[in-house]
Amino acid sequence: MAVRALVFDVFGTLVDWRSGVAEAFRASAVPGDPAELADAWRERYRPILAEVNEGSRPWGDFDDLHLATLDDLLEERGVELAVEERRRLVGAWHRLDPWPDVRPGLEALRRRRVVATLSNGHVALLVDLARHGDLRFDCVLSAELAHAYKPAPEVYQAAARLLGVATGELMLVAAHPWDLAGARGAGLRTAFVDRPLEYGPGSPAREDPEADESVGSLLELAERLDGAEPV
Amino acid sequence: MAVRALVFDVFGTLVDWRSGVAEAFRASAVPGDPAELADAWRERYRPILAEVNEGSRPWGDFDDLHLATLDDLLEERGVELAVEERRRLVGAWHRLDPWPDVRPGLEALRRRRVVATLSNGHVALLVDLARHGDLRFDCVLSAELAHAYKPAPEVYQAAARLLGVATGELMLVAAHPWDLAGARGAGLRTAFVDRPLEYGPGSPAREDPEADESVGSLLELAERLDGAEPV
Repeated sequence: MAVRALVFDVFGTLVDWRSGVAEAFRASAVPGDPAELADAWRERYRPILAEVNEGSRPWGDFDDLHLATLDDLLEERGVELAVEERRRLVGAWHRLDPWPDVRPGLEALRRRRVVATLSNGHVALLVDLARHGDLRFDCVLSAELAHAYKPAPEVYQAAARLLGVATGELMLVAAHPWDLAGARGAGLRTAFVDRPLEYGPGSPAREDPEADESVGSLLELAERLDGAEPV
Repeated sequence: MAVRALVFDVFGTLVDWRSGVAEAFRASAVPGDPAELADAWRERYRPILAEVNEGSRPWGDFDDLHLATLDDLLEERGVELAVEERRRLVGAWHRLDPWPDVRPGLEALRRRRVVATLSNGHVALLVDLARHGDLRFDCVLSAELAHAYKPAPEVYQAAARLLGVATGELMLVAAHPWDLAGARGAGLRTAFVDRPLEYGPGSPAREDPEADESVGSLLELAERLDGAEPV
């Protein structure tokens, strides 16, 4: 089966959340190493999504969840911060720069197939990021539309249904093996894209031997897919 | 309140469905005037949507509904047509050309605000039309995401919610007064764009005196909105 559409994870895969969030901490009154603060905030991301998927926390979008995890982090460190300052930090997730290969890579990939986001971030947040980075997608898809968070299978299945393709014709592109494993469990094909700077210099090495493709950039993925398919 | 986002009706407002569908009839084995056949097919559109909204017909996407209304039309006229031929006609709705002002108009409008579709057509169909016409949207929204068809208020309200704006900050752009009235009923602002050729030369004249803006093209709308707002 040909790959008719690609869906992309966004945070870490397409945009460099750590630099942007660290920059926002640097401009804030929060004491400490800005990059370490960004990492500590992000670390609370998967546990809070799991709470939503398990039903122990009501649905919240990324602005809600980022605010909740920021409050926890600041409380743990004994930092008091005005609500406007906290909102400004949450807003930093709306203005993150893409990795350098992303804009040209998306343009190359969308010549022959549909490209869409498939992020746990909500639609309005993804629209802000796409506009900020001048990224062109054919469609903005989000876990919000399935009312469940990745890696729940219904998120990936909803993407295939909305794009009008079989799950086997849809490929998730992501830097995170847990996300790719979730996609495979839902019947999708997968491409691992290495983002060795997601956690800054010295990020832990990652790989996904089960992925259909493993690449270092979106441009390399375009070469792989277009080399393997009739022009 | 400033207009922070614009949502666009698609069939008739952005794309010329009649020419494209007539062309498909011309290339088919269906006897009769191709443009008249296109009009007769389109005439069955609002009644079948009403059946879905009233619950007397189960949910179907535009491919399902176009096939059902085509079958009715052909049966009424005593025309037998192979299933592949019928599917080809249904597929014509995926490859319709935009009106000439649409591509540059969307580019102008999206400089200062979010632009999205808000069509009764399903997401996959809208993605095909946007790719066919090289139209750039920040987001593809559809009645499919609300599981109800315009003019049901929840369709317009879902668009505001997904875009993260108040209904009063969202403007529907459409050529059809019934759609604009539905949007106003849901709290949106409205812009009427005249499409005097939607039904070919001699189309019935339309206007919407209650719309916030009435324009002859998307470029005129950009001038109106950007003239009225701080740069």
